[in-house]
Amino acid sequence: MRPVHVGICGLGTVGSGTVNLLQRNSALISSRANCDITITQIGARRDNPNCDTAGLPVVADIFAVAKNPEIDIVVELIGGTTVARDLVMTALEHGKHVVTANKALIAEHGMEIFAYAESRNLIVAFEAAVAGGIPIIKGLREGLSGNRINWLAGIINGTTNFILSEMAGKGREFSDVLKEAQAKGYAEADPTFDVEGIDAAHKLVILASLAFAIPLDTINIFTDGITKLQPQDVSYASELGYAVKHLGIARQTAEGVEVRVHPTLVPKSCLIADVDGVLNAVMISADAVGKTMFYGPGAGSAPTASSVVADIVDVARTMNNAPESWVPALGVNVNNLKKLPVLDIQDIETSFYMRFSALDKPGVLSSITKIMADASISIEAIIQREQPATEEYVNVIILTSVTRESALDEAVARIEALATVRDSVNFIRVEHLD
Amino acid sequence: MRPVHVGICGLGTVGSGTVNLLQRNSALISSRANCDITITQIGARRDNPNCDTAGLPVVADIFAVAKNPEIDIVVELIGGTTVARDLVMTALEHGKHVVTANKALIAEHGMEIFAYAESRNLIVAFEAAVAGGIPIIKGLREGLSGNRINWLAGIINGTTNFILSEMAGKGREFSDVLKEAQAKGYAEADPTFDVEGIDAAHKLVILASLAFAIPLDTINIFTDGITKLQPQDVSYASELGYAVKHLGIARQTAEGVEVRVHPTLVPKSCLIADVDGVLNAVMISADAVGKTMFYGPGAGSAPTASSVVADIVDVARTMNNAPESWVPALGVNVNNLKKLPVLDIQDIETSFYMRFSALDKPGVLSSITKIMADASISIEAIIQREQPATEEYVNVIILTSVTRESALDEAVARIEALATVRDSVNFIRVEHLD
Repeated sequence: MRPVHVGICGLGTVGSGTVNLLQRNSALISSRANCDITITQIGARRDNPNCDTAGLPVVADIFAVAKNPEIDIVVELIGGTTVARDLVMTALEHGKHVVTANKALIAEHGMEIFAYAESRNLIVAFEAAVAGGIPIIKGLREGLSGNRINWLAGIINGTTNFILSEMAGKGREFSDVLKEAQAKGYAEADPTFDVEGIDAAHKLVILASLAFAIPLDTINIFTDGITKLQPQDVSYASELGYAVKHLGIARQTAEGVEVRVHPTLVPKSCLIADVDGVLNAVMISADAVGKTMFYGPGAGSAPTASSVVADIVDVARTMNNAPESWVPALGVNVNNLKKLPVLDIQDIETSFYMRFSALDKPGVLSSITKIMADASISIEAIIQREQPATEEYVNVIILTSVTRESALDEAVARIEALATVRDSVNFIRVEHLD
Repeated sequence: MRPVHVGICGLGTVGSGTVNLLQRNSALISSRANCDITITQIGARRDNPNCDTAGLPVVADIFAVAKNPEIDIVVELIGGTTVARDLVMTALEHGKHVVTANKALIAEHGMEIFAYAESRNLIVAFEAAVAGGIPIIKGLREGLSGNRINWLAGIINGTTNFILSEMAGKGREFSDVLKEAQAKGYAEADPTFDVEGIDAAHKLVILASLAFAIPLDTINIFTDGITKLQPQDVSYASELGYAVKHLGIARQTAEGVEVRVHPTLVPKSCLIADVDGVLNAVMISADAVGKTMFYGPGAGSAPTASSVVADIVDVARTMNNAPESWVPALGVNVNNLKKLPVLDIQDIETSFYMRFSALDKPGVLSSITKIMADASISIEAIIQREQPATEEYVNVIILTSVTRESALDEAVARIEALATVRDSVNFIRVEHLD
C-alpha cells in the first residue's frame, strides 16, 4: 500500500496520545485508511514520558515539520492561537493537509484557514476540536446531511459538568468542588476558560457554523459561566424536576440564530440531564431525524487522539480524490456560507427559573404576580420555601412559561425595586429541549 | 452542478419519507452533495397518500428502475429478502450504486452483495438498516476508525424498548402492553420479529461485523425475546438498582466474539438505562475513545429517510472517485474480513439475576448457597421477598458475580431439583457495561 506521511506537532496530552494510538493500532488504522500511515516526523521541544518516540525522528522546530517536503499531513496539537495559526498557515502554504484538535484556533481563525485551504485544494480536519472523542463533527456534517437543523444543545465542557454533577449530587459549593476538580486534574490551575464558558463558546461556534452553514463568528456569543451558581438553586431545580447543566445552545429562528452558553435548567426526563461527571453530550433536533444525541468523553489523551486519528484516516483515504468530492470543512464551501443575524440575548425567547428573597407577609405574592402579569409573563409554578437563619424572609421560586428575555428583565427590575424584596433576583434560563 | 440520478424502489413508510425529504430539502441536500440530486424514477405498485409524486415518473416495475440506464443510484426500500435481493443484484449488474434500509437483506445476503459490488466497483450503503436515523454505521466505521472495539450494546428495537419501558414504569404485563403497542402502531399485527429479537439480531449482526471486521453471519446468534419477561422481575431488578433492557450485545474476547440478543439487567447509573420508549441507543466501548453512545429514533418515516438521504449524499459526492478511496461497506474490504469463532451462549461469562420460589423454612437458603459455592459462583446479593397468595413460599432473588453460563446452568439444574424449590429458576443476564 502507498504510504501516507504524517508529521505530528506537539507532544502534550493529545500529541502523545496520538503517537501512542498510531503505533499501537498501526495495522488496523492502515487497513481502515487503505494505505500505510507513517509518522515521518515529530515536532516537539521536549519528550513526553507517556509516549515512546524511540525510532521516530523528533525535531524541536515544529515549522520544520510544516515545511518537510516528505510530509503529506501536518497534525497541529500545540494549542493556542498565535503560533498554532502560523504553523497551520505555513503547513498549507507548503501544500500539506492539516488535522487539528484546536477549538480556539478554528473558532477564531477558521474562516481564514478554511478559505486558504480551499484555494490551495487542501483539507483541514478538526473532529477533535469539539467534544473530544465523540464523532460529532462527522455526525452533524455527514450523518445528518439531509436535515435542516432546528437546534442543538451540548454539554461540551467536562470540567463544568463535573462541578455541576458534584453540586447536584452532594449539595456542595462551586468553589469547594472546583478545588477538587483541580486536584483531580479535571480543571486547570487557572480555570477561567472552563468555568466562565469560554472553552464551551469556542466549541459552540464551530457546531453552530456546521449546523446552520453560517460563517464562524465568536463576536456575538452570549457566554455565562457557572461561578455564580448556588447549591440552593441546583436543589430547588431538582425539586421542580430539573437538572442544572452548563449548555451551549444554538438555535435557528425566524429572526436569525441564537448562539449562547449558560447554566440551564433541563427537565430530568430529558436524556441529557442524565449525563454526569466529565462526560460530554450533544443533542441535536433536526427536521427529518427528530432528536438524536451523541455522548462520550470530551477530553483526555486517548479519546481526543481517537478523533485525531479518525481525521488522519479520512484525509489519507481521500486526499488524492478530486477536491469537489471532499466534505467541505463547514459542510458547504466557504463561499456558500450565509451570514445570519445572531440574536442579542435580550431577544431570545425561553422559560426562566427565578429566585429571590421576599418578606413573608400577606400581599407580597400578589404584588409579584401582578408585575409578572403586567410583563405578559405566565407563571408555570411558584413555590415558597423558608430560608435558614431568617424568619421574616422566604425564598420565592418562580418558573415562567416562554417569554422574551427583555420582558423578563423588566419584571426582574420591578421586583427588585419592591420594598418587600431583599437583594437581587437570581434567574436561570430553562430549556425543555422538545 | 452535474446531476446525479436517483431511482427509488418502494413507496412505503421509508420510501415516501425519502421522496418527501429529497423534495423538501432539495437545495440543502444538493449543496451538501455538491451536485444536483434528481429523483429520476420511482418504482412502486401503488401510490402513497403521504407522499406527493406529482411530476415524478412512477412505474410499477421496480426492475425497470434497477435497469434504467439514466439512473446512477438505486434506492431499495421494498423490504424482505427475496425480491429485494434480486433487485439489488440486478441494480449492481446494471452498474448502479445501491442505497438500502434493509437490515434483513444485509444481515442475510450482505456478503454476496458486498463482494459483487466490490468486484464491479460499486458502492452499497446501508446506514438506515441499523437504528433508523442514528448515524451509527458512519460513527462506528469512520468516527471510531482508529479504535479497537471492545464491545457494543444496543437498544436496537424500538418496539421491545417501548414495551419494557411501560412494564417498568407502570408494572404492566407484557401481553397487555403489546396490545397497546399494536394499537399505537409501534408493533406489527404479527409482532414475532420484534418481540422475539429477530429484528434486533439482524441489526446486531451488522454492527458486530463492522466492529470486529468479521464476515456477516446470522447462524450462531443467540436470540432471546421479551415474551416471557414478568413484571415482578422488572420490579425486583429496579429494587436492586437495575433496569431491564432488551440489548443486542457484541463483544470481542480472547476466545472469539459474543453476539447475542436477550433481556439484560443494566445498572441504572448507566446512561443506556435511561433510554425509554421507542428510542434506540448504541453504546460502544473502544480502546482509545472509551465509552460513547449514539441515541435517537430507530424507526419511522422521516428518521429513517434521514439516513437514506445521508447515504445518497455520500454516494453522490464520492461515486466518481477511485474505489480504493471509498470506505468499504464493512470498514475493510470483503477479502480482509477475518472469521472469528462465535462463542456458544454456554461459554459466555457474565453476571446473572436469578429468581425462584422456595419454601420459607430454615436450611433452605443454606442448601442453595452451597450449590452456588459448589459451582464456584460468587453471590453479590441475595434477597427474599414474600409472595402474594402464598405463605409457605418466598421469592428468592440472587445476583451473581461474573461466571460462565455453563456453570450457572449446572447450579440452576441442581436448585430446580431441590424438594424445597417450586417450579423453575428464572434467570436474566446482567451486564455492567463498564
